[in-house]
Amino acid sequence: MPKLRFQISMSLDGYVAGPDQSVEDPIGRRGMELHEWAFATRTFHEMHGREGGDTGLDDEHAAGWNANMGAVIMGRNMFGPVRGPWTDDEWKGWWGPEPPYHTPVFVLTHHPREPVEMEGGTTFHFVTDGIESALAQAVEAAGGKDIAIGGGASTVQQYLRAGLVDEFEIHVTPALLGAGSRLFENLADGPAGYECVELVSSPVVAHYRFTRATGM
Amino acid sequence: MPKLRFQISMSLDGYVAGPDQSVEDPIGRRGMELHEWAFATRTFHEMHGREGGDTGLDDEHAAGWNANMGAVIMGRNMFGPVRGPWTDDEWKGWWGPEPPYHTPVFVLTHHPREPVEMEGGTTFHFVTDGIESALAQAVEAAGGKDIAIGGGASTVQQYLRAGLVDEFEIHVTPALLGAGSRLFENLADGPAGYECVELVSSPVVAHYRFTRATGM
Repeated sequence: MPKLRFQISMSLDGYVAGPDQSVEDPIGRRGMELHEWAFATRTFHEMHGREGGDTGLDDEHAAGWNANMGAVIMGRNMFGPVRGPWTDDEWKGWWGPEPPYHTPVFVLTHHPREPVEMEGGTTFHFVTDGIESALAQAVEAAGGKDIAIGGGASTVQQYLRAGLVDEFEIHVTPALLGAGSRLFENLADGPAGYECVELVSSPVVAHYRFTRATGM
Repeated sequence: MPKLRFQISMSLDGYVAGPDQSVEDPIGRRGMELHEWAFATRTFHEMHGREGGDTGLDDEHAAGWNANMGAVIMGRNMFGPVRGPWTDDEWKGWWGPEPPYHTPVFVLTHHPREPVEMEGGTTFHFVTDGIESALAQAVEAAGGKDIAIGGGASTVQQYLRAGLVDEFEIHVTPALLGAGSRLFENLADGPAGYECVELVSSPVVAHYRFTRATGM
């Protein structure tokens, strides 16, 4: 069975993005600090067509993102800083002509737009009829592989509240952002029904991996 | 120089106590889960006059609490469930006749009360004139040793906002409480000026240790 899963980097004080997202700060002020551990890995280097990068524990956890992954779902704000209706087709994501996904990507939005085909296998599809529809389309597109929620916080929260997430991993960094988007809020006292199956750390990040609790 | 420091266990979703503190649930519903890692250690066993307990990484971090510690400051709610004026002297804390502190303990409250001397060196002093006064009294009582903030969240936040904390350690457990008292809020976009000097983990908890950033 294909799984719906996510993995996300979080500051120790609970933020997955800093405040004031903009073209200059795609993840908000200081948001890039949450991902420094990942930038250092070989997996990240490879995803962006570069040589080098560290192997080891953090790299293994970064690589989990790609393993058996057939489609991505993300929120509108993760796709770009544009708000309201798409006024033109100029914005094609933060990632340049060849985004690092290499799969269909389903973008949740209230505003319809034609699909955008990028280099390297990534096609952005814009879904206006809700998270269940996006998931159904992603499952269809993924051909039996898993579906990854790319983010941000609001999108993850919607899927958690709907009880649709099978597995997740939180990468907790020692950053203290002080403000931004919290992962664990708007969850109606949840998430419930998950158990931590792995906790390991490097000197710069701790990885907490959860699956659905057995016997639920 | 004596240091003001704290160490506190936090759920992955950011809570240091569950909701609905009561005589039955001193740390709120499911709050005890945050401390299971510590209960297992030899340090905890010794603090409560018992044999046994695990040694190793978690024990070393639990033991940090006692090292060179000369006085404790805690909030009223950590001392007990009584609210409003002290109607009698019956409540003497959660910890029985011999509390595990063995030092002077300064309890922040709006309601004056005579000191309560317990067995084993713990004396509870009730401070009604604010956190700076409590700290000054604790420094005096500690005789050159460090002062530990016992908790809870509100007391820690007050000292962080005032810029008075020298060091702290957060023990992040994989628990997902869903509700309770958050550590990282009411901090005016802080805390700022700290750097993580150690991040290590066992399979059940990760320890993040911070000191004041050098060059601040």
